[in-house]
Amino acid sequence: MDLQGDDLTEAVVASFGDSPSERYQTVMSALVRHLHAFAREVELTEDEYFTAIDFLTRTGQASNEKRQEFVLLADVLGLSMLTVGLGNRKPPEATQSTVFGPFFVEGSPAAQLGDDIANGAPGQPCFVSGRVLNTKGEPVAHARVETWQADEDGYYDVQKDLDHPQNRAHLITDAEGNYSFWSVRPVAYPIPHDGPVGELLQAGGRGWMRPAHIHFMVTAPGYGRLITHVFAAGDEYLDKDAVFGVKESLIAEFTEHAAGTEAPDGSTPDRPYYTVNYDLVLATVEETRASGDR
Amino acid sequence: MDLQGDDLTEAVVASFGDSPSERYQTVMSALVRHLHAFAREVELTEDEYFTAIDFLTRTGQASNEKRQEFVLLADVLGLSMLTVGLGNRKPPEATQSTVFGPFFVEGSPAAQLGDDIANGAPGQPCFVSGRVLNTKGEPVAHARVETWQADEDGYYDVQKDLDHPQNRAHLITDAEGNYSFWSVRPVAYPIPHDGPVGELLQAGGRGWMRPAHIHFMVTAPGYGRLITHVFAAGDEYLDKDAVFGVKESLIAEFTEHAAGTEAPDGSTPDRPYYTVNYDLVLATVEETRASGDR
Repeated sequence: MDLQGDDLTEAVVASFGDSPSERYQTVMSALVRHLHAFAREVELTEDEYFTAIDFLTRTGQASNEKRQEFVLLADVLGLSMLTVGLGNRKPPEATQSTVFGPFFVEGSPAAQLGDDIANGAPGQPCFVSGRVLNTKGEPVAHARVETWQADEDGYYDVQKDLDHPQNRAHLITDAEGNYSFWSVRPVAYPIPHDGPVGELLQAGGRGWMRPAHIHFMVTAPGYGRLITHVFAAGDEYLDKDAVFGVKESLIAEFTEHAAGTEAPDGSTPDRPYYTVNYDLVLATVEETRASGDR
Repeated sequence: MDLQGDDLTEAVVASFGDSPSERYQTVMSALVRHLHAFAREVELTEDEYFTAIDFLTRTGQASNEKRQEFVLLADVLGLSMLTVGLGNRKPPEATQSTVFGPFFVEGSPAAQLGDDIANGAPGQPCFVSGRVLNTKGEPVAHARVETWQADEDGYYDVQKDLDHPQNRAHLITDAEGNYSFWSVRPVAYPIPHDGPVGELLQAGGRGWMRPAHIHFMVTAPGYGRLITHVFAAGDEYLDKDAVFGVKESLIAEFTEHAAGTEAPDGSTPDRPYYTVNYDLVLATVEETRASGDR
């Protein structure tokens, strides 16, 4: 009774003492101590408390199967990249990880190598290819490569009122670890800022642009799951990504080609197109556990 | 680029550097530093990150005009009481503050002094009275006293499928600062635990009971708003309130009386009833700013 100050904090921590999970106790007691330390440090006012309650409530309510506003919030607060770093210690040869983002959708269409997955999305054609390798440089056959990206207008398919996916598919690498598909050249785009997270960015005087990128999620038996992007070299927002996700090693050249020149897949597009080639290097489960890029 | 560890944290803090509000910068940078310190301390895993995203999303979605699950979350994490303490420094003569709780509703019915506000709610009749005073012991006339409470089954009106309020009203004190109304004797009750906060309590091995209490919110020109409860002496949960809200000074005796005995308002109830008397002491705005019960 009459709990206040540190006594209150310790009472809340102690209230988790009967949790059957030791990990839950550890996480919740750290959460409570840091949450209380924050409130005390800034002398959180009751008005600010209610503003925060309202903000978090609306953040939950803005989320649906096509939009995850809390992932976006974690992204712009750097928590996503921090967690990515904590969870993906791996050898330097392996491709670095970055944020998952709010636009992944379960159940993407299956595509064959070389397919055009743009599916009508506006943008300049882009041939995306590379190999899935292990840290010894050996190909990983039959790896599953999920990819998703925005179109020329900066929109993911799920942000548009469509009845079919665009720039979103999964492919299986061949015996040499190759993957390839046609999509459109990605462009820099604003993260959704018509919801609570947009209010936060506005109040914070922050930008909401992300540099152009293509998302990848690669899985293969025995390997740690790789969630990453390939960023377009030269993008003006590489140094000011709204979600802090850029790694130097994830930047690749998107090369422009004239109409009528032969593309890597032997086709001859009748309009200008881009190519980008990027090898995705997986760490084994054991390597992922060992040390890393934290 | 390539932000990780402390560099990442500092980059996120710096991103708020252009906020037009200095206070916003202060609050957000403290929030980011404590949030990141928490994640690093527990080495938050990606699974835990997604569990948290899902939990917070559902907490927002469980909230509606009759239930505020984020207030409930802040309550069980002690953040509400911490904020109450930070925001209500006042002289020891003033009534202490406690949590607002998730069941306040705007637009309660107006009641006259002595009215029965139970409005059909199940429970033993209870005559609640007292005075609204200032810290010098002088009456505060025309103060607005909002009150709300659970019934004998432990439910607030908004938790039931009703078309009218029960045990909820606002009254205006008379020239001597008196307030009084009939409601029902409150009982200890479980906080709502069929939502995300219930999962948290369960995982934490925690109880979800609150000791019996009546809510008050008192406002009067020139005085700081008082948000508090009056708790029932002898309740078995006074020492283990799920939301850490009990203050010794807020406990009052609920006295039982036999049927046929005269009540303080001159009536003679034909069944057993309770009385409780509690004076609500307001600090002036100046006193509230000065020092306090943090």
